[in-house]
Amino acid sequence: MMSHALFPAGSFAELRARLAALPRYDEAAAAAALAHQNSLLKPPGALGRLEEVAIFLAGWRGTARPRIGKAQAVVFAGNHGVCAQGVNPYPQEVTVQMVATFQAGGAAINQLCRAAGADLSVVALELERPTGDFTQGEAMSEAEVLAAMAQGADAVNAQADILLLGEMGIGNSTVAAALAASCFGGVAQDWAGPGTGSDHAGMGRKISAIEAGLARHQGARGLAALVAFGGREQAAICGAILQARALRIPVLLDGFICTAAAGVLEAEAKGALDHCLAGHVGAEPGHRRLLAALGKEPLLALGMRLGEGSGAAVALSVVRAALEAHNGMSTFAEAGVSDA
Amino acid sequence: MMSHALFPAGSFAELRARLAALPRYDEAAAAAALAHQNSLLKPPGALGRLEEVAIFLAGWRGTARPRIGKAQAVVFAGNHGVCAQGVNPYPQEVTVQMVATFQAGGAAINQLCRAAGADLSVVALELERPTGDFTQGEAMSEAEVLAAMAQGADAVNAQADILLLGEMGIGNSTVAAALAASCFGGVAQDWAGPGTGSDHAGMGRKISAIEAGLARHQGARGLAALVAFGGREQAAICGAILQARALRIPVLLDGFICTAAAGVLEAEAKGALDHCLAGHVGAEPGHRRLLAALGKEPLLALGMRLGEGSGAAVALSVVRAALEAHNGMSTFAEAGVSDA
Repeated sequence: MMSHALFPAGSFAELRARLAALPRYDEAAAAAALAHQNSLLKPPGALGRLEEVAIFLAGWRGTARPRIGKAQAVVFAGNHGVCAQGVNPYPQEVTVQMVATFQAGGAAINQLCRAAGADLSVVALELERPTGDFTQGEAMSEAEVLAAMAQGADAVNAQADILLLGEMGIGNSTVAAALAASCFGGVAQDWAGPGTGSDHAGMGRKISAIEAGLARHQGARGLAALVAFGGREQAAICGAILQARALRIPVLLDGFICTAAAGVLEAEAKGALDHCLAGHVGAEPGHRRLLAALGKEPLLALGMRLGEGSGAAVALSVVRAALEAHNGMSTFAEAGVSDA
Repeated sequence: MMSHALFPAGSFAELRARLAALPRYDEAAAAAALAHQNSLLKPPGALGRLEEVAIFLAGWRGTARPRIGKAQAVVFAGNHGVCAQGVNPYPQEVTVQMVATFQAGGAAINQLCRAAGADLSVVALELERPTGDFTQGEAMSEAEVLAAMAQGADAVNAQADILLLGEMGIGNSTVAAALAASCFGGVAQDWAGPGTGSDHAGMGRKISAIEAGLARHQGARGLAALVAFGGREQAAICGAILQARALRIPVLLDGFICTAAAGVLEAEAKGALDHCLAGHVGAEPGHRRLLAALGKEPLLALGMRLGEGSGAAVALSVVRAALEAHNGMSTFAEAGVSDA
């Protein structure tokens, strides 16, 4: 099915060269889906974003009548050296404990995937070996970033009709804020939020760490930002997004951390996220700003701030509703209903 | 199960006397649900509105661990004499045609109920006998309002764990705007929108009709507004909401027209909608204003403007997600995860 083998890639230069050839939106399929929508038994546009979502999926799946047989959610987990700066109230062991809980079925994402009908995969990325503390040096080498991206790509099931991406990693809202600031400008305060629940002192340490990182790694945009700030789960999310693009699988992004990882790709290659929908806008204050920078309108705004893919999983039900309407409704002609 | 037989009621006075004794939110069950939420494997509050919804359902169902076994959606359909004023671009026969389509399974609401796991009931209310043209006189008699309310109440399945309400009726966004203006103040332009798709001239006729109705029926609030403006489906929605309250069944409201009908009850008896969630805010401009007047924050904002219960049906998936998380997640203690 793949028209492009993106990974393994020996260098960023090699990967960049492949990005130009990624599949694009199928305008003909989208136009056919729009024409079908306009024949359905409702005033044109009356289903609002449900219509847009159905057409979006048509364009990416390359068919006027897209369906979700298999929905796959992947949670990537990593650990971060910047935790040495006291940026998170939870101990770093929580990352591995949460991975065990994902595998045992007890976390929020397990329940939300079951509710929405998504298969959950969990990929733990060298949790015993945190990335480097970005206030002191680079978080990862180019080779480490590429290896994590390849792991992300490998996690994508080629049979999936939609891919949901989530993450877990104590300290990774600090990494996300640094990535967003480095790729989209602004200062640490623009992007840093309470994350899992930092208090005032914790927020101070978080902002100081981000400022120190931005000062040390000036101008690190796109893939270079992953080297500067990490982390492995962010790189894996990027790899999974690119693999999904190569397979024409639309992606549902989750919260601030997932979106900040994705934003690295958009900063690297404009249009790289064109196959991605923003599942929700979360409570983390930087998320809305980041979605605006990416030109993405979120499907949901439920004040969630958990990560794990939780917002994407809830949004999947909206996508399913969109396709049920698209594929199941009668046309005016079929129903014998008078038009305006 | 019912502690109060609300219907039949011989007069508004008789019904009003019964409203004071309706069941109230179970604070103890809600507190137990909140305590359970705070033990779950996430930072407190991290699931945002999903947590609020779970606690809300606990309070109304009277149990710390509410579940949705059966979800019922009811679409009420009626016809309106005000169509004589040219307020809608579709012919009035569309109401009966759409009812046939609901019964045949071809409408949007059929697909959206299937996607969300709701049973759909359709109640057509004397479609061959439109209510009176409210620009010329009263739309309905007190007895007709009470009869339609009783039909609405009868449609509620006492075994349902949640009730979704929708409507269909050519011309009923004009009725909704008149009800909202009469109950919550403001002028016709504050509440009138394009509905199913009025053009500029159609909007002019719609606003004129609403203005004429408001001038004729000054001060008609609450149940009296149903007499003044109708219609049968609005009265039935009110009856269903009250019956659900008597049965402690939480309600998911749909769009502007459904919400305007519900608003009649809030104007009649403050707190009458305390068991109702706003499923979504639609594209009809008056809807956001009305939800603000009712103090309801919508679960979804997807730009929908179809009615039929469509927004409530999509919102049901959010409610289901909330309960899956509430009932299925492990606690910190169960999972052996370190707390902050």
